[in-house]
Amino acid sequence: MQFSTSFIPDIRFGSGLFGDLAGAIRGFDGARAVLIVMDGFLASGGLAKRLAGELAEAGIEPRLYSEFSGEPKLAHLQAASALAKGADVVVGIGGGSALDIAKVAACCAASGEDPMFYALAANPLPKNPLKKIMVPTTAGTGSETSATNIFAGPEGKKLWIWGPETKADLVLLDPALTISLPPNLTAWCGMDAFIHAFEAATNRNTHAGAKLYAHEAMRLVAGSLEAAVKAPGNLEARGKVLLGSCYAGIAIDNCGTAIAHNISHALAGLAPIHHGLATALGFEATLSWLADMDTPDLNEAARAIGLKNADAVPGFVSDLMDRCGVERVLPKAFDGFSAEDLAAEMRAPENQPMRRSTICEVTDADIDAFAARIMSLPKTL
Amino acid sequence: MQFSTSFIPDIRFGSGLFGDLAGAIRGFDGARAVLIVMDGFLASGGLAKRLAGELAEAGIEPRLYSEFSGEPKLAHLQAASALAKGADVVVGIGGGSALDIAKVAACCAASGEDPMFYALAANPLPKNPLKKIMVPTTAGTGSETSATNIFAGPEGKKLWIWGPETKADLVLLDPALTISLPPNLTAWCGMDAFIHAFEAATNRNTHAGAKLYAHEAMRLVAGSLEAAVKAPGNLEARGKVLLGSCYAGIAIDNCGTAIAHNISHALAGLAPIHHGLATALGFEATLSWLADMDTPDLNEAARAIGLKNADAVPGFVSDLMDRCGVERVLPKAFDGFSAEDLAAEMRAPENQPMRRSTICEVTDADIDAFAARIMSLPKTL
Repeated sequence: MQFSTSFIPDIRFGSGLFGDLAGAIRGFDGARAVLIVMDGFLASGGLAKRLAGELAEAGIEPRLYSEFSGEPKLAHLQAASALAKGADVVVGIGGGSALDIAKVAACCAASGEDPMFYALAANPLPKNPLKKIMVPTTAGTGSETSATNIFAGPEGKKLWIWGPETKADLVLLDPALTISLPPNLTAWCGMDAFIHAFEAATNRNTHAGAKLYAHEAMRLVAGSLEAAVKAPGNLEARGKVLLGSCYAGIAIDNCGTAIAHNISHALAGLAPIHHGLATALGFEATLSWLADMDTPDLNEAARAIGLKNADAVPGFVSDLMDRCGVERVLPKAFDGFSAEDLAAEMRAPENQPMRRSTICEVTDADIDAFAARIMSLPKTL
Repeated sequence: MQFSTSFIPDIRFGSGLFGDLAGAIRGFDGARAVLIVMDGFLASGGLAKRLAGELAEAGIEPRLYSEFSGEPKLAHLQAASALAKGADVVVGIGGGSALDIAKVAACCAASGEDPMFYALAANPLPKNPLKKIMVPTTAGTGSETSATNIFAGPEGKKLWIWGPETKADLVLLDPALTISLPPNLTAWCGMDAFIHAFEAATNRNTHAGAKLYAHEAMRLVAGSLEAAVKAPGNLEARGKVLLGSCYAGIAIDNCGTAIAHNISHALAGLAPIHHGLATALGFEATLSWLADMDTPDLNEAARAIGLKNADAVPGFVSDLMDRCGVERVLPKAFDGFSAEDLAAEMRAPENQPMRRSTICEVTDADIDAFAARIMSLPKTL
């Protein structure tokens, strides 16, 4: 047995914790200026204003970047990086997009380089980025504990910036922040978290160090997602899903994902679709095939959520999706695409790492079969 | 539920990993000079010389501090700090003493202050200490993942320096390094690790964040300690105990210990005794009393090691100590002391935090009873 686990930041968990974000920022001695990255929808709710007031009162210059929505684009990263210049701390508040923008801005502001300088690992990241506090308001991406950051490049192509230098120094997990997330998004994000954990615990890269987090994440999400979807104000359930999502982020930070994420990224390459929904659809379409591999890791993952063995996982997951109201449909925008189009995206070079990390070989015939299964879904969303 | 977990360094685990320590040091970009803190016994075995050669070859100036044995004294910390000045990385290789000296030296060398400046939290530690790599060769203290460092002050009194600034940047866990540890030390250190985990998982400070590590540590140590003691060359068992000890270190880094460690420190205040043995004796003497409290945390800890409930823990632990050959005896030096002497140490101010963190009130009558039980043990070691 041989493995490495990458460092895990300070984590604070608790309902209402966000109320003292200013206090947490003051914890970074000598912080004089802080950039808050928060998506426009959240910022418009008064959160940004309140926070700015609290920081100013504490003698800290508040700056805000919120001119983005949806997936981050290069221009967002550039704008946030420019605003972060001269600040000491960057705070990301929101879903994966806000966190990814904040993490990259903290690096680019320190070095003065453009984000493209670091895209696809072209150059090493700066060793001393600004301090980073990450506050997820959705429970899914795990970006608060990962070293991966996704954005659309100048030609719209999906690019990534990866490195421990982009990781958070402090993660604030406040379940109360996730309460306003609608049921369908709660379910999609939660399924994404569960699948992060499952894939990290069962793919070719998995190891004992990461399975500690992955199994706990699966237990937390599987045990509480339905309650979080059905009773949005259930803070205990929200908290367990949020913590599970954070642990799943640690698991993928160490071991990455597998075939469900290959499909999910391939779908996103065709037309806009929520990442969590796309991943859930890809997971369900491949899970029986995967469970048949019957590896010790698959059986261990099954037992972590109280099942007898890997055979029981597909039924459990389909039932979980039913209980959480996940409809098996694609957005209407997929009407113009065929199974062949999806299969071609699944074979695209940028999606091969997720294909290769899957525990068994994914043949071209497998890809065709999975693509056909996915594209036969109704396009009614 | 509300909790914080302190950051966890990069961890590399694997047999033979130590062979590339020079490579790990080169991983810290721009390291020009490295201080290796290694106890005299280890250093005399050729390890220090080989390492120095490898570093010199890589253009890194090697420095060595090994003029210590047993528990660290202020003079050791001062000497190591002086040697660390101008270095970029400090590497601690050995038991808890070597690691504690290395961790403190990395801070004092950065600030130029004397260790006493930081003792008992008198002043804040420097924010930018030298980089630290910790390589435990015993599986017990968990110092590689904790923020606590113990040493004997100018008058011989036990002091501590605490702070996240003293924590490692990288932990190397190489089971092969623990093979030369004799069976009795393997057993004592392993029991210390198990008790760290158990106390952190069941005391007043415990929380879900720390229990993840504590329960895994208990499983790993309880499942493999006997094999590691009886077959010293069993690298798989050694590895599990070493990893368990590391996780137990994370657990106490977040939640501290309890009554067994109160007794252990009190015993050490009377006469020299191995910390692991003292802790095991204190644990066994109090465990039935503790298990009677029947808290959810105690029952959860019991289930983590496959037991039905807390009632079963005392029998399990006594059996584990039997299987690992832990004799219930004190060193001869304790002949001159009475139960009253031990009770007085247990009531000493510096030992009260461990008394207070115990899940139920420890009355003066409890202390007298525990002290009597411990001091009635044969003094034959």
